[in-house]
Amino acid sequence: MIRKNPTLFSVEILTAGNQGDKLIEQALEFKPNAVVIGDESQYQKVKDALWSAQIKVYAGKKALASIVESSEIDLLLNALVGYSGLEPTLRAIEFGIPIALANKETLVVAGQLVNQKLEERKVAMIPVDSEHSAIFQCLAGEYSNPIECIYLTASGGPFRGKSRADLEKVNVQQALKHPNWSMGSKITIDSATLMNKGFEVIEAKWLFGLSPEQIKVIVHPQSIIHSIVQFNDGSMKAQMGLPDMKLPIQYALAYPDRILSDFPRFNFMDYPQLTFEEPDRETFSCLNLAFETMALGGNAACRLNAANEVAVDAFLKEKISFLQIPELLAFCLQNGFHIHNPQYADYVQSDAETRILAQSWILEGGKQGR
Amino acid sequence: MIRKNPTLFSVEILTAGNQGDKLIEQALEFKPNAVVIGDESQYQKVKDALWSAQIKVYAGKKALASIVESSEIDLLLNALVGYSGLEPTLRAIEFGIPIALANKETLVVAGQLVNQKLEERKVAMIPVDSEHSAIFQCLAGEYSNPIECIYLTASGGPFRGKSRADLEKVNVQQALKHPNWSMGSKITIDSATLMNKGFEVIEAKWLFGLSPEQIKVIVHPQSIIHSIVQFNDGSMKAQMGLPDMKLPIQYALAYPDRILSDFPRFNFMDYPQLTFEEPDRETFSCLNLAFETMALGGNAACRLNAANEVAVDAFLKEKISFLQIPELLAFCLQNGFHIHNPQYADYVQSDAETRILAQSWILEGGKQGR
Repeated sequence: MIRKNPTLFSVEILTAGNQGDKLIEQALEFKPNAVVIGDESQYQKVKDALWSAQIKVYAGKKALASIVESSEIDLLLNALVGYSGLEPTLRAIEFGIPIALANKETLVVAGQLVNQKLEERKVAMIPVDSEHSAIFQCLAGEYSNPIECIYLTASGGPFRGKSRADLEKVNVQQALKHPNWSMGSKITIDSATLMNKGFEVIEAKWLFGLSPEQIKVIVHPQSIIHSIVQFNDGSMKAQMGLPDMKLPIQYALAYPDRILSDFPRFNFMDYPQLTFEEPDRETFSCLNLAFETMALGGNAACRLNAANEVAVDAFLKEKISFLQIPELLAFCLQNGFHIHNPQYADYVQSDAETRILAQSWILEGGKQGR
Repeated sequence: MIRKNPTLFSVEILTAGNQGDKLIEQALEFKPNAVVIGDESQYQKVKDALWSAQIKVYAGKKALASIVESSEIDLLLNALVGYSGLEPTLRAIEFGIPIALANKETLVVAGQLVNQKLEERKVAMIPVDSEHSAIFQCLAGEYSNPIECIYLTASGGPFRGKSRADLEKVNVQQALKHPNWSMGSKITIDSATLMNKGFEVIEAKWLFGLSPEQIKVIVHPQSIIHSIVQFNDGSMKAQMGLPDMKLPIQYALAYPDRILSDFPRFNFMDYPQLTFEEPDRETFSCLNLAFETMALGGNAACRLNAANEVAVDAFLKEKISFLQIPELLAFCLQNGFHIHNPQYADYVQSDAETRILAQSWILEGGKQGR
């Protein structure tokens, strides 16, 4: 999109975790003022490659959070994965930089704190997640009209319709086959467990100021309707289209305008039936865990997220089974230390403590025995 | 809606065609300043009934058009049926009164003239037709974003899936059974022929400034998605809900606000499948006639509408068969007098001439012989 609209956008800073080669390639194309490579061991390689283009190079996690201070940024697109997205978000808010948020964990972990900071600094946050972008698009021109409820649509993931017994033996390859969306491995596993949808429920609560009762999840296997708002007159507005993350990213960057795109268009004849079903909350209990953490409040969702990051990593490394993911999360929720009104330091501590708790559960082979 | 929100709305004028008793009942409830009864023979009855309530009573078509001059009206809800809605609309525009338009024929017949007058007088027109209300709702907050196309949804009417052979013998009772919407007999027949959808295409062209190529019709038998806008980034926004005219009427009156309603809410479990199909333009050729009249421009749609009013009336009186409706329309389109840049007097004349032409066709038993 930026490639196609060079007069509308320029990239000030580019960042990458450990994909140094891709960062170099993109930096040479988009000529940012600076880049940050998360993996410090790749610093020299990136530095050498970008030296002649006069692009500043920084490395390491700390640089990620501090780079926002020294630059002229109109909008921060936070597409980091997991808990690591929180600090740069808070830093950007501090410096009054609006945020396009693709990192849902920022709000899952610390929604209360983030909202409070956004409010204090009058900073805008625009969702990039396709479901939240859908809601956000439907709210254009409706800001003063009360929301009755929202429907977050869920594809149901690769295991939709399966029973707990079916899921006993599923392997990593099966879990990584998402039917509609092409995404990273962490979020793809989260989609298979429905934890991703649970996180989206929590994210929606903070983004749109909703109570948990106002947030409904409906399984829509075709992923064409990306989400729906129902207003207090009963009218519903939905945002639809082919499942393609390029659209919500572009919308967040161009908002409130839309930019002509050549993304493939939806054709009803390719989707003559759009279907809907209730999610199976027994088999995919992560969804219920999200609602339970909202009821608990405080640092509960932070702990849920930390446990989930450890659990998904362990599942991808074949240390635990698919059904042990929700088991581990439930264990951490029950046994972690609850804090009612967490501040930033509390989140950092809760996150670290929960990771240790989760690791110990895994090392012990699951408290329930396996 | 007005009954439930007496502090938000008051009725200044109430009108009725020939339902004098209903007019009396509503006038006694809503206490308007004046009422108009179209049927002059009922004047005395209405006058006597409303005398003690000190409500002014007028009768006849002329009163309908002139009453707007003498009153304090914030918004005219034009829900007249057919060509008769045009004159009051033009009169309201002249007096700077915004219009909530349920009478689509106003724009079908004379969209070019109406738009020109709206522009001149800077008067707003808010659609009430459910499909156009859907589009209008989806455009909230998107006024500067170019529309790529719109999808007007069609239930397909009572004869969806039928062949021409099946339609040879259908009778009035069958044609009056609309699957989803409860409406008057004229519009219900128009729904069965798809002429209604064709008129909606023409209405959409004028309301939203679209070219015919930008307006697509998709059959959606459940009538849950009321219509869809596709923007130039490929994103689509749909307005959805149970089929209930109360919602678009309320939206038009309350716009840009929404008012809490107790209308029944949509439940996905009642509609687990939303389906879509292409309209059958061979069998339901009225839809094509609408596109042909747009290509012809000038007074063509006025003539199409006049022919259709005569045809539907004749069908309801069992003077012509169902399949003779499009035959009669095609005949009038081909044989009527074409005017490129019609003014108001031209529309009046075209309407009158086409009615005579259509009547003569019927009297002669159909030019094609039956």
